[in-house]
Amino acid sequence: MNRLSLFGKALFLLVATPALAAAQSAIPLENTVRDVQQYGFAIHILAMLLVGFGFLMVFAKRYGYGALTGTYLVVAAGIPVYVGLRSSGVLSAEAVDPHTIRALLLAEFAVASALIAAGAVLGRVRLHQYALLAIIMIPLYMINERLVLDGGLAVTKGFVDAAGSISIHAFGAYFGLGLAVAFTSRQQRAIEVGNDSASNRFSMIGSMVLWLFWPSFCCAVVPQAQFAATAVNTVLALCGATASTFVFSSIFGKGKVAIGDVANAALAGGVAIGATCNIVPAPFAFGIGLLAGAVCVIGYAVVQPRLQRMFGIVDTCGVHNLHGMPGLLGGLAVVLVVPGVAGAQFAGIAMTMVLALSGGVVAGYVLRATAIKQFAYEDAEEFHVAQEPETV
Amino acid sequence: MNRLSLFGKALFLLVATPALAAAQSAIPLENTVRDVQQYGFAIHILAMLLVGFGFLMVFAKRYGYGALTGTYLVVAAGIPVYVGLRSSGVLSAEAVDPHTIRALLLAEFAVASALIAAGAVLGRVRLHQYALLAIIMIPLYMINERLVLDGGLAVTKGFVDAAGSISIHAFGAYFGLGLAVAFTSRQQRAIEVGNDSASNRFSMIGSMVLWLFWPSFCCAVVPQAQFAATAVNTVLALCGATASTFVFSSIFGKGKVAIGDVANAALAGGVAIGATCNIVPAPFAFGIGLLAGAVCVIGYAVVQPRLQRMFGIVDTCGVHNLHGMPGLLGGLAVVLVVPGVAGAQFAGIAMTMVLALSGGVVAGYVLRATAIKQFAYEDAEEFHVAQEPETV
Amino acid sequence: MNRLSLFGKALFLLVATPALAAAQSAIPLENTVRDVQQYGFAIHILAMLLVGFGFLMVFAKRYGYGALTGTYLVVAAGIPVYVGLRSSGVLSAEAVDPHTIRALLLAEFAVASALIAAGAVLGRVRLHQYALLAIIMIPLYMINERLVLDGGLAVTKGFVDAAGSISIHAFGAYFGLGLAVAFTSRQQRAIEVGNDSASNRFSMIGSMVLWLFWPSFCCAVVPQAQFAATAVNTVLALCGATASTFVFSSIFGKGKVAIGDVANAALAGGVAIGATCNIVPAPFAFGIGLLAGAVCVIGYAVVQPRLQRMFGIVDTCGVHNLHGMPGLLGGLAVVLVVPGVAGAQFAGIAMTMVLALSGGVVAGYVLRATAIKQFAYEDAEEFHVAQEPETV
Repeated sequence: MNRLSLFGKALFLLVATPALAAAQSAIPLENTVRDVQQYGFAIHILAMLLVGFGFLMVFAKRYGYGALTGTYLVVAAGIPVYVGLRSSGVLSAEAVDPHTIRALLLAEFAVASALIAAGAVLGRVRLHQYALLAIIMIPLYMINERLVLDGGLAVTKGFVDAAGSISIHAFGAYFGLGLAVAFTSRQQRAIEVGNDSASNRFSMIGSMVLWLFWPSFCCAVVPQAQFAATAVNTVLALCGATASTFVFSSIFGKGKVAIGDVANAALAGGVAIGATCNIVPAPFAFGIGLLAGAVCVIGYAVVQPRLQRMFGIVDTCGVHNLHGMPGLLGGLAVVLVVPGVAGAQFAGIAMTMVLALSGGVVAGYVLRATAIKQFAYEDAEEFHVAQEPETV
Repeated sequence: MNRLSLFGKALFLLVATPALAAAQSAIPLENTVRDVQQYGFAIHILAMLLVGFGFLMVFAKRYGYGALTGTYLVVAAGIPVYVGLRSSGVLSAEAVDPHTIRALLLAEFAVASALIAAGAVLGRVRLHQYALLAIIMIPLYMINERLVLDGGLAVTKGFVDAAGSISIHAFGAYFGLGLAVAFTSRQQRAIEVGNDSASNRFSMIGSMVLWLFWPSFCCAVVPQAQFAATAVNTVLALCGATASTFVFSSIFGKGKVAIGDVANAALAGGVAIGATCNIVPAPFAFGIGLLAGAVCVIGYAVVQPRLQRMFGIVDTCGVHNLHGMPGLLGGLAVVLVVPGVAGAQFAGIAMTMVLALSGGVVAGYVLRATAIKQFAYEDAEEFHVAQEPETV
Repeated sequence: MNRLSLFGKALFLLVATPALAAAQSAIPLENTVRDVQQYGFAIHILAMLLVGFGFLMVFAKRYGYGALTGTYLVVAAGIPVYVGLRSSGVLSAEAVDPHTIRALLLAEFAVASALIAAGAVLGRVRLHQYALLAIIMIPLYMINERLVLDGGLAVTKGFVDAAGSISIHAFGAYFGLGLAVAFTSRQQRAIEVGNDSASNRFSMIGSMVLWLFWPSFCCAVVPQAQFAATAVNTVLALCGATASTFVFSSIFGKGKVAIGDVANAALAGGVAIGATCNIVPAPFAFGIGLLAGAVCVIGYAVVQPRLQRMFGIVDTCGVHNLHGMPGLLGGLAVVLVVPGVAGAQFAGIAMTMVLALSGGVVAGYVLRATAIKQFAYEDAEEFHVAQEPETV
């Protein structure tokens, strides 16, 4: 008992941080209000990361366990890596105390980007590789965050991206395309992922959870005085995308709608409004949503098959359609509404795409060295399930 | 580039509203606190609209895609219509700036009413008609809101309906019955909607999401000093309804429970407490919940089959049982707890029912002119799915 | 009409409480902020109770309706019982006004404990017995709350358990094991509960909802100045548990993962961090999570089969693995980080376990006197379903 409590005391002294002591002292009420508000955003974004991204990817009918476990692993690896690195200040413009809501929010943004990247290679990496992906990608994400978003480069000073159309969504999507270069085999290009009535209904849970909590994603780090406008703009952009998704999916489907379009493209408005969510008027937000939904449906119908033919890569979830192109649209829209930032904006976008794509390719080959999944989109290879995997 | 930025500037000047500028200025802290709180309510209600209403309606086993896409379309059409109209002030007692949480909350209430109405004709309208339904119904909802709730008529001065038992739930339910007059064919009356183990478990997600966020629905616009009491009352009313649902469903089912009763009638307490949620003591709230659960189960077992026989209309989700009768119960309960408002209360209820029913019938025939769904409760008619629709 | 309004007035006078009147008066802004914050926690915890616990238990493939209806009934019976008893002050250190967020939070904690206990006998009690279980267990929970947590006994003065590792989780788990003594028949020990692809995906919804809202469970009643640290610690503990779950499940599964391990053991970090969530540094939180995930997986693989063989009891959901052992781990970890409380801590833990186990056994035999379920883990016995139950 004595030894135990001695050990306890030593451990306490060893690990107790100044932050803990500081937490006890008096805090001005407006800071508390801000913390209470941002805590709400942080939990909503966690819902997007887990139930949102996780279930959206359950559309793969024989890979639901893998999609959900992979999601858990990206989150479980990504948050500690970001919080730890960010508290050290090594890769960032400023160190952030881990015991703050701000640390949690920034970590969640990084994890969102990692989950987007994972969506591009979903079902073609082994489970432990989801965790490794987050561990490798997040430092690169942080470098991009510093250079582009936090003005680490003179050329991107003035870059506008309030809720990460470029720095989160496009970065994740192009990193994912980079990963797919390493993680698409010739056989895999011929395999259908496959979806069914159950898997699509599960996927719609993810879609709706992402939709409804998206205002919190956009509000998370905008100035408090702008949050109400940001929230309404985000909802309107999502409404716009949902409406145009329905129209364009009907057109491309010759009168019939693809439920996968609905699940994904309805969200494109949230991606595209990200950069300008706090500064545009309401009709603009609705309009950019309309456009983003259309772009995303066209992505699934036209762009994705071409990418696959031309570059030989498979993008399992179509993250390029949902996060890549609508993200670029959002980042470019800045030029229309904020005078004088076109140069910084184009530089920041180019920088992000180059870093993401090249980082993704390198990360992909590093990851592939650790293992190769034999049966694409099959839970049975790595989980205890009733039926055996079909051969490739 | 020059032309682009010129266009951007023009667009900016064209669309920038005074509201945006005002948003930057200093706001008293108590207003911020209120906004933070109401933002939380607004997101919770969005969860109810999408995951809640959406998945509750997935009980229809061959119409899950339709139920979810229809939900998306009602929301995507309804919110912009309400926010836009309300900011113009044309139909309302007072104009509301679109870039406020209040605008969002009021729009969500209107959309809730539209989703209830849609539930009555679920699976018998075509997808685009869900959006049209919202576009037609919401102006009528706003007229009723102005006349009854905001005291536009002398006779309804003093009308009490804190969280919309009458103005949201009953209005939606009777509007839906009106729609069903136009949207029930003779053949359809013989078709079983059909549900199975998967569709019912999905439906229970919707039920539980509605249940747990219901306190935010009731708290949304009550005075801040009453919100704690409102929250507890709402929870107690839901507990009461859940308990009596179990008892009455067992009785009508001769010892066996219908999972559809559980999914729906457990929520009737939330509907019925709406009118008086902020002013009754806790035991009263529990009691009205007990009663509402019973009324709703009786509705499914006894009233709905009679309505169908007598008026030849099919109410797909039984919205009359869940939102119609418990809504009236809640609106009438006001007479017991607030002295001196009986006249205004009866007038407001009568007014709402007349406007809802007649509006629904007219809207139904207008909508029907745009298209007719051939195969009731079948996704295969409008979505790409594996199996073909069964013939009617 | 006159008689109605007279009756209304009488009822109003009879049931109106001073709390209602007080609610109208002015409240200092910091109290409002605290209320707004705690309301958020309360709704998040409701999500855990209903969608979280409820769907986690839907893993039982032929007992999804029962799991969800049982969850509804525990909540619907438990909250009014706690709120009512607590407002009377009979069993507690201090009476709590029912119209407060605090009353709701404390009631939800009690219900969480009851749902944990129910998980141990899931599918082997009849539906009404879920409600009875809550009604019998909650007064015992309150006695333990008073004696151990609120320092009702001199020997537990100084007992540390910020978010209920011992008083909620371990109490519920050992109460559940007690119930299982009465509710496990010899035949039942041979029956497989059974799970399939659909039931496991539903179960993962519950798992993820519990995970993401867990920070609110831990923050709910800690001092406001500590809530940010508490939130981050909780997330890190969950990350740790998720990571080690994957590793240990792979090891015990010989390279294949059990999705049931992922759904449950990923949450063990939340259970274990409960006692010390507001006072440990971030790396400690991650570490205790790692340990808790491992303990939980070992529980499923090694401890549970032994318990079943040695004591002849079936723990349907393995609540001993998820809430029992990780709860004890969390309660014991206090000794390492808070100097001088070892005595109170051991006394409180011992006290809780004795009261829970003995209370559970007695409650089990009392409950069993009301009915016995014939077909274990079968919805068809108590719900209207398509197929008939398989014989035992």
